[in-house]
Amino acid sequence: MKVGILGYGNLGRGIESAIRQNDDMELAAFFTRRDPASLKTLTPGVPVYSVNDIAAHKDEIDLLFLCGGSATDLPVQTPEYAKYFNVIDSFDTHARIPEHFANVDKAAKESGHVALISCGWDPGMFSLNRLYANCVLPEGNDYTFWGKGVSQGHSDAIRRVEGVKDGKQYTIPVESALEAVRAGKNPELTTRQKHTRECFVVPKEGADLNKIEQDIKNMPNYFADYDTTVHFISEEELKANHSGIPHGGFVFRTGVTGINKENKHVIEYSLKLDSNPEFTASVICAFGRAVVRMAKEGMTGCKTVFDVAPAYLSPLSGEEIRAHLL
Amino acid sequence: MKVGILGYGNLGRGIESAIRQNDDMELAAFFTRRDPASLKTLTPGVPVYSVNDIAAHKDEIDLLFLCGGSATDLPVQTPEYAKYFNVIDSFDTHARIPEHFANVDKAAKESGHVALISCGWDPGMFSLNRLYANCVLPEGNDYTFWGKGVSQGHSDAIRRVEGVKDGKQYTIPVESALEAVRAGKNPELTTRQKHTRECFVVPKEGADLNKIEQDIKNMPNYFADYDTTVHFISEEELKANHSGIPHGGFVFRTGVTGINKENKHVIEYSLKLDSNPEFTASVICAFGRAVVRMAKEGMTGCKTVFDVAPAYLSPLSGEEIRAHLL
Repeated sequence: MKVGILGYGNLGRGIESAIRQNDDMELAAFFTRRDPASLKTLTPGVPVYSVNDIAAHKDEIDLLFLCGGSATDLPVQTPEYAKYFNVIDSFDTHARIPEHFANVDKAAKESGHVALISCGWDPGMFSLNRLYANCVLPEGNDYTFWGKGVSQGHSDAIRRVEGVKDGKQYTIPVESALEAVRAGKNPELTTRQKHTRECFVVPKEGADLNKIEQDIKNMPNYFADYDTTVHFISEEELKANHSGIPHGGFVFRTGVTGINKENKHVIEYSLKLDSNPEFTASVICAFGRAVVRMAKEGMTGCKTVFDVAPAYLSPLSGEEIRAHLL
Repeated sequence: MKVGILGYGNLGRGIESAIRQNDDMELAAFFTRRDPASLKTLTPGVPVYSVNDIAAHKDEIDLLFLCGGSATDLPVQTPEYAKYFNVIDSFDTHARIPEHFANVDKAAKESGHVALISCGWDPGMFSLNRLYANCVLPEGNDYTFWGKGVSQGHSDAIRRVEGVKDGKQYTIPVESALEAVRAGKNPELTTRQKHTRECFVVPKEGADLNKIEQDIKNMPNYFADYDTTVHFISEEELKANHSGIPHGGFVFRTGVTGINKENKHVIEYSLKLDSNPEFTASVICAFGRAVVRMAKEGMTGCKTVFDVAPAYLSPLSGEEIRAHLL
């Protein structure tokens, strides 16, 4: 299958390298809002086109990976490009998913394409685990923890604080909370009891460190509801030790079965990721294969990970997956 | 949806109680090979019929749960009853799955029913996790560990040893092996390095304990390749402390991404189950809902968990699962 990438940030680059690990996919084109000549990709043989000319390539590509952001790019791009292509995105603004789904569904149905939205690990693999586990254990409790990992939004928030030159924020699940959930204790956990926040901050010269620390710790929405630690470090140290984008997390479902609900069960799914965007890209790549197959079978409209039979994700045949993975 | 249960052992009883946790299912009938009058179920209002009369009830039931064993029951029962009903089974003789699939597929296609085979947690939920993780991380390693839990086959093997009155065997994953996998070390593990076996044995009066211990530890296939511990206990102690059927396990996929394969990722799925048959039944119940829905949409033939879009498992609507679980 021939695939294209629109947007060449962290996610687009992740898709580019994920495609190399999937032999049945051929990267046919990059599309960009920048000057195409300015884009230095890692796959020099593949043409880079302006997004303005994208419709002209509609018959050359089986699937377009949309690698824009959820805030302003995808709400426009996904319905727009579903007119011309089978598409997949990583839309993750939770509250706006119903609206995004409706817009994309309309466009994809009218044009006869499949468009899969909200793919990645959360939403994505975590969502699948929540769904499966809820169906298997209808009476129980859900817990999702994130980290240890870099939160882009919280790192951005730190960098907006007066006196801060640069910074990185890690979200860390509270170990005792994980253990209580894992032990089937069904704890009720406040925001503060679930995660801590650890900040590595490079101050500007002469900045008031105490004021920076208080400004961060008391920032509403981002830090005030958490136990937050602030470390001041040098620019070199930030670069040497905190330039990666690791992430991960845990999804639990704990529930009961039995005629008297006497038996307890714990389902746990966890991810430990060196690179958040590359893993997200790898999930999207696998679901991209499914999108192309579903479109070939004549399906149309907007889909989510919930609508994809797992067999569509695999390059192997039904016989092979039954023999090797069942 | 109206459902029936064929076979009233541990799994059949598990299905009976799981149905009570799924409001959209109504238990309509039990079928048994025994004298129906002899079956004391936990749901007295529901009729018990002889399996000999089962075909007469084909229009009363949307789905038949097949709760027989994999060795001799299901290879006959699943193709046979797929002639009259949508069915679901827990067939777990791995080497014979292709043959079973072919037989069931033929019967179900001819009669226009959906038949889902090999459902439960392994095969079942573990299979799904292997498939998803393999598709997301095409370059990597798989690890499956079982336990801590009771192995029925190994417990039976103990009880066949001369001088043994009763016994229970626990399969236990080796903690250091779990830790090495979890740390992304990609260890190559022998059978002995993955699991240990712990036996609780009630000896017959006057039996030679040393001989029993040696007979167990040296038993080929079952124990000889493992580090095995044998504890001699009283019948009362066995009953008090070892009458449950707990189980569980771990599925790992570790893999790499990145243009130079420089980033490592660990996907871990684990189950900790108080009751193996009740959890198996709960998985089967959720997939049973999917079978009925897929049949209503006109699908036919043999399916596995790989062929079921996750949304079919949930009693909630597409809108609801997107809003609450995505």
